[in-house]
Amino acid sequence: MFYTDGKLQFPVRVESPDPHFARALQQAIGGVEGEIRVAMQYFFQACGARGNPKFRDLLMNTAAEELGHIEMLATAVALNLEGAPVSVKEQVAGDPVASAVLGGLNMKNLLSAGLSAMPVDSDGVPFDMSHIYASGNIAADMTANVAAESTGRVLATRLFNLTNDRGMKEMLSYLIARDTMHQNQWMAALEELGGPSKVFPIPNGFPQEQELQEFSYAYLGFQQDGSEPVPGRWSDGKSIDGKGSFKTMVPQPMGQKPVLGPAKPDSGAQAEQS
Amino acid sequence: MFYTDGKLQFPVRVESPDPHFARALQQAIGGVEGEIRVAMQYFFQACGARGNPKFRDLLMNTAAEELGHIEMLATAVALNLEGAPVSVKEQVAGDPVASAVLGGLNMKNLLSAGLSAMPVDSDGVPFDMSHIYASGNIAADMTANVAAESTGRVLATRLFNLTNDRGMKEMLSYLIARDTMHQNQWMAALEELGGPSKVFPIPNGFPQEQELQEFSYAYLGFQQDGSEPVPGRWSDGKSIDGKGSFKTMVPQPMGQKPVLGPAKPDSGAQAEQS
Amino acid sequence: MFYTDGKLQFPVRVESPDPHFARALQQAIGGVEGEIRVAMQYFFQACGARGNPKFRDLLMNTAAEELGHIEMLATAVALNLEGAPVSVKEQVAGDPVASAVLGGLNMKNLLSAGLSAMPVDSDGVPFDMSHIYASGNIAADMTANVAAESTGRVLATRLFNLTNDRGMKEMLSYLIARDTMHQNQWMAALEELGGPSKVFPIPNGFPQEQELQEFSYAYLGFQQDGSEPVPGRWSDGKSIDGKGSFKTMVPQPMGQKPVLGPAKPDSGAQAEQS
Amino acid sequence: MFYTDGKLQFPVRVESPDPHFARALQQAIGGVEGEIRVAMQYFFQACGARGNPKFRDLLMNTAAEELGHIEMLATAVALNLEGAPVSVKEQVAGDPVASAVLGGLNMKNLLSAGLSAMPVDSDGVPFDMSHIYASGNIAADMTANVAAESTGRVLATRLFNLTNDRGMKEMLSYLIARDTMHQNQWMAALEELGGPSKVFPIPNGFPQEQELQEFSYAYLGFQQDGSEPVPGRWSDGKSIDGKGSFKTMVPQPMGQKPVLGPAKPDSGAQAEQS
Amino acid sequence: MFYTDGKLQFPVRVESPDPHFARALQQAIGGVEGEIRVAMQYFFQACGARGNPKFRDLLMNTAAEELGHIEMLATAVALNLEGAPVSVKEQVAGDPVASAVLGGLNMKNLLSAGLSAMPVDSDGVPFDMSHIYASGNIAADMTANVAAESTGRVLATRLFNLTNDRGMKEMLSYLIARDTMHQNQWMAALEELGGPSKVFPIPNGFPQEQELQEFSYAYLGFQQDGSEPVPGRWSDGKSIDGKGSFKTMVPQPMGQKPVLGPAKPDSGAQAEQS
Amino acid sequence: MFYTDGKLQFPVRVESPDPHFARALQQAIGGVEGEIRVAMQYFFQACGARGNPKFRDLLMNTAAEELGHIEMLATAVALNLEGAPVSVKEQVAGDPVASAVLGGLNMKNLLSAGLSAMPVDSDGVPFDMSHIYASGNIAADMTANVAAESTGRVLATRLFNLTNDRGMKEMLSYLIARDTMHQNQWMAALEELGGPSKVFPIPNGFPQEQELQEFSYAYLGFQQDGSEPVPGRWSDGKSIDGKGSFKTMVPQPMGQKPVLGPAKPDSGAQAEQS
Repeated sequence: MFYTDGKLQFPVRVESPDPHFARALQQAIGGVEGEIRVAMQYFFQACGARGNPKFRDLLMNTAAEELGHIEMLATAVALNLEGAPVSVKEQVAGDPVASAVLGGLNMKNLLSAGLSAMPVDSDGVPFDMSHIYASGNIAADMTANVAAESTGRVLATRLFNLTNDRGMKEMLSYLIARDTMHQNQWMAALEELGGPSKVFPIPNGFPQEQELQEFSYAYLGFQQDGSEPVPGRWSDGKSIDGKGSFKTMVPQPMGQKPVLGPAKPDSGAQAEQS
Repeated sequence: MFYTDGKLQFPVRVESPDPHFARALQQAIGGVEGEIRVAMQYFFQACGARGNPKFRDLLMNTAAEELGHIEMLATAVALNLEGAPVSVKEQVAGDPVASAVLGGLNMKNLLSAGLSAMPVDSDGVPFDMSHIYASGNIAADMTANVAAESTGRVLATRLFNLTNDRGMKEMLSYLIARDTMHQNQWMAALEELGGPSKVFPIPNGFPQEQELQEFSYAYLGFQQDGSEPVPGRWSDGKSIDGKGSFKTMVPQPMGQKPVLGPAKPDSGAQAEQS
Repeated sequence: MFYTDGKLQFPVRVESPDPHFARALQQAIGGVEGEIRVAMQYFFQACGARGNPKFRDLLMNTAAEELGHIEMLATAVALNLEGAPVSVKEQVAGDPVASAVLGGLNMKNLLSAGLSAMPVDSDGVPFDMSHIYASGNIAADMTANVAAESTGRVLATRLFNLTNDRGMKEMLSYLIARDTMHQNQWMAALEELGGPSKVFPIPNGFPQEQELQEFSYAYLGFQQDGSEPVPGRWSDGKSIDGKGSFKTMVPQPMGQKPVLGPAKPDSGAQAEQS
Repeated sequence: MFYTDGKLQFPVRVESPDPHFARALQQAIGGVEGEIRVAMQYFFQACGARGNPKFRDLLMNTAAEELGHIEMLATAVALNLEGAPVSVKEQVAGDPVASAVLGGLNMKNLLSAGLSAMPVDSDGVPFDMSHIYASGNIAADMTANVAAESTGRVLATRLFNLTNDRGMKEMLSYLIARDTMHQNQWMAALEELGGPSKVFPIPNGFPQEQELQEFSYAYLGFQQDGSEPVPGRWSDGKSIDGKGSFKTMVPQPMGQKPVLGPAKPDSGAQAEQS
Repeated sequence: MFYTDGKLQFPVRVESPDPHFARALQQAIGGVEGEIRVAMQYFFQACGARGNPKFRDLLMNTAAEELGHIEMLATAVALNLEGAPVSVKEQVAGDPVASAVLGGLNMKNLLSAGLSAMPVDSDGVPFDMSHIYASGNIAADMTANVAAESTGRVLATRLFNLTNDRGMKEMLSYLIARDTMHQNQWMAALEELGGPSKVFPIPNGFPQEQELQEFSYAYLGFQQDGSEPVPGRWSDGKSIDGKGSFKTMVPQPMGQKPVLGPAKPDSGAQAEQS
Repeated sequence: MFYTDGKLQFPVRVESPDPHFARALQQAIGGVEGEIRVAMQYFFQACGARGNPKFRDLLMNTAAEELGHIEMLATAVALNLEGAPVSVKEQVAGDPVASAVLGGLNMKNLLSAGLSAMPVDSDGVPFDMSHIYASGNIAADMTANVAAESTGRVLATRLFNLTNDRGMKEMLSYLIARDTMHQNQWMAALEELGGPSKVFPIPNGFPQEQELQEFSYAYLGFQQDGSEPVPGRWSDGKSIDGKGSFKTMVPQPMGQKPVLGPAKPDSGAQAEQS
């Protein structure tokens, strides 16, 4: 069950409304690195969490925080859109500045939402919930969360660098700090699950003797000239999961050209395919 | 530049065609955990790689491998669909078994593709390229790759458990091994970049003194009754990035209820909103 | 700001797990009539609310409730999926019953989510946030909310009729009651805004003398034979907004066939189009 | 069956082509509030209409009208795009004005459509037919139609305010008038179905004694501090459907924390989850 | 402007309602090969047609026909869904036959549409208007139309083969005939435009001396071993457009490995990338 | 199996980075006419090819080429984005030129990809793999390929006309030449399959006596006034497939108004619909 107090987790101030920056902020709401994504991802991971209940609690608690971040950003978008023109009043249409401002907006922020935030990204593309990764495997979920917070913090620092509005910089310095925590938090959860040597390869419940272990720690090269691929930590030394040793191989095709056979009659193929 | 020999990386054999299993395999082609996703993700990460060129090579080399995996799985889908009915011939429509088979298919595999594979998931939803994470930050990309291979291997083991066809089990035991490698490979890349204390928080190029550091390592609780959230590795001890110490806080709203002010005239609001 | 207690608003019990019903329930989570839609719609409407703050409060308060409904339904889906097979163990693949169960599932509930709920509809299509209607016009938003709760309750009663599990029927009888309230609640909000004669036509802030009033209350017929369209309340009597009288008209085209003129040189058209 | 005469329902004139306004007009074609949506929504509602045939006629007749509106708007978009540059001719690339015009376009109107209209919104996002609400319940459909025409008229007035081209203002004054009619028309249809007390709660065919009536007219509060939510018409007095009385309640969780139990073996979870 | 008479272009009869076949028919409505696609494609091509007006007329006239085909198919879907269960009445849930029927449906046909047609494909995926190809080049449009009618007729014959309902076979034999005509019609339009040697390469308005003509008629081989690709009509003889002669070449990379240079400071990259 | 050498098929040079042109180039990567589409379309057609194996080889060989084209274009996008601002440094926010540049970008190229290419179109919409036409019918596939290369070359010439950067013009003159070849190549494949009289109507495996041949070569008119539609090559003379003669007909509805009958009880309809 969820509750609200209608207040903001952190103050949202805009000194100089900037409609272009409103557009950029939309990425942090409805982009694939944005807050809807993490809020809903943690929410659904919590709902499907099996095993130790502390992970459900951790996830649902953080989902609640992220809902509050959407609220902050939606407020920031609306405040930045204050500067956008909504009416020509017989003069704006010919005004290149107003026109440039209009041209640089997500038009839907104006036309569909009346100068408010929307669950879309910075190019106006709606968020698609297929980005909610909730795999039923708690460790895989944690890796997805580290990734989400990593791209999320990259985005937040880009936004920070794009504005010189003090209010916006303060808000973003808070959100960046939270992303720092959340990156660490999900890595800590992986540590709580035992760290790399216990957790990986994910899922650790699958018996590795059932996989073709000859290829489990081999860096395969697919260079056209048959040369070895450029080496690195991934081609030498103990594997990160501690269960094998990296090596390099140049593979030959083990299978032949596939032959599907003729098309079935009545399957809609050309007669020549039968 | 890419080259092909038209052969399969690993043999694809189907002993007993199973159209339902063909449907399940589609998830490994066009699902968000599937092979199109990793092939294209590594491809685009490679194209945008800046800095040390070895990462571009690593990524493009692995993209080439994943393209071959799509090829293997597409062959497997087509071979499994051999068993699907395409024509009633005056009797199948009333046959409950054939009817059940039809009902359990991705109908598009039959109706749109003539018993071949498609770039869709196991429920027939086409793959959407917004799932290609290529952030311009090499470390964030690596976390996304670990996540992709983790959910990918979870999926592959589920498929392995769903079939008892020996050919399919062999093929999957190969793909599972490759996922083991790729999980390790991307973690090795993070190690090559310096490991957690050098890599995190991502992006490491952003000066942490510009974030609101009071909140950078705090596990905030959002429990309705104001109680502390359930503790764990994430609330105590040194942070995983080594740059702070975890603590728990119960936050109060620092912001007020947002007030956007009245709607602008001519902005399409109700008169009462002005 | 949002808070949680991790508990369910109403008990969720499943007497006999039914994976097919789990699939049907997904519509109430991730369908366009589902709970993600209303939760997020009220949330974004609240964030963009201008004018009297009581509407923001009303909306955000109800958003909090709907988040709890997603939680209930996600639990119900997971509990119903208990009955789904995940492994063949050398015998299930040939078992028509287990096979039929598999065929009737959203495969992603199994393959992507490990027998948990997902933000997808009953055919596995992910929810798309373009369905969040938040127009910046409080009255238009209320009409969208009445519509959402109307289709929502239609869906909930269909689900109720599809199951005979007592736990599920109880849960749905609660959700149906809440939909009754919410239909009434949003209509009450329209009444608070003044009722039809004050609210409509939406937006009421646009001066009607600027519209072509000859056509504002005319039911136009587009019958191929030029006959009058079938009459009804919409063709006779005072208009519902009280500002006009309905009439019927058979329109003639007032415009000609459009002529765009030749294609510009260098615009990618065929030479013959210039 | 449909017929056409190729002529426009209302004259479409553009005095000064404005490519930015073409972009805005795209919202009225392919936006969720646009004409494709209503045309197809009424069309599919008509095709699925059961019961009194006059509703089918009403819906299909209006679908025909809306098809004509798409035609008008598509013409308006093409005429406004006349002003867009298609070729640099060695000078436009360096010209900031032409460049700004290009930057403010839906690039696809130029690159994909050669200066013609497309079924996309004002940010270039294609229309997605999941927005066609056709529920099989005639009253729910009517509420969806009132909502569609309400957001549609809001959009049309915003477009009206954004241009000072006389031809465009005339066209929009016609379309705004038609939206006025259509809002009234669908409300009239609800009246023909018996008005609020007969129609609601939708679906009225579900026996209300099967819902948990204790909660059917209760405005529940989800305020974090347990306070009562802000009152309004929705918390007091007779319900709009006339079947109950509004009241306010502060709910306690009736369910516990959900426990899904351990993960099944072979379900792809971590070993620790079993 | 469009008109309707509410009647069907061809009789739609269903002798034995078959909900599974209803699902298959959905592909012909909302699939990428379906009738919404062609109706809207011809409509938008007509709206953007420049040059000889006879093509606009041809396109809009055929758009009108295709709208009628959607109507026919939507009726066929609803009639076939008559057989689907909507209520358990205390016994259906345990009935494997009814359960199998349910499992094989597009659940949304039942849950969202109340046993009516929807603008979705046979797996329940909504139609996405990005499939409307209207390029502004009349010849390119015609090739897209030939392709649409070719896949459309393939689909229609697959549907024909899947049913033995006489009513459905009759309806499909009509639609298949219309697809025959439409394939021919659009090829005839290409002939009217001058046939291959005049029409191709599309766009014919681009001066071929500006393309790198050395590669304009070369079949390039990308075989890993550097061998020549398998020859065919495409590697020998006069080109189809009559403007060159086919030849085979094995290309070498003409470009080097791309180097993007270091990441900009403040661009969100890792420090090591600068 | 696929291989790479990491080099570019053709040199990619940018003399003056132009972020707006980067946006336009995105259409050639992730637009529906772009290179991802053709690469994946030929790939999946190859994987599903039945019958003469030379078509599989032809398709997979060309898929390899198109992968290299994505690589070239992705490099071109990144090089053109060099000019985009990423940081305000206390001055850019107020600079109208930099602001206009930002406004005209796909913001995601900056915010999500750090000045690199993405699999999105020129308005930032991600590519959707439903555009991969691979029908199982080799001739239908070839028509789809001709269409893809036709719209693709139209796009490439539009891009050519929009830039005056010599490096970009050279790269595009190469890609345009390749599109010329590919249009011819797929038409040559149709010729190899026997040419129009053997190939059409597609699928040629369906016995035409099963279609309603009275309508197979009739150009039907849907003019509102019952007049004949505008004649053309499509209404007179031998059909292009050589199997009939074109004629014109003005059709009358052969079916009546559809009547679906009352709604089932418990199907979620209004009581009045039963």
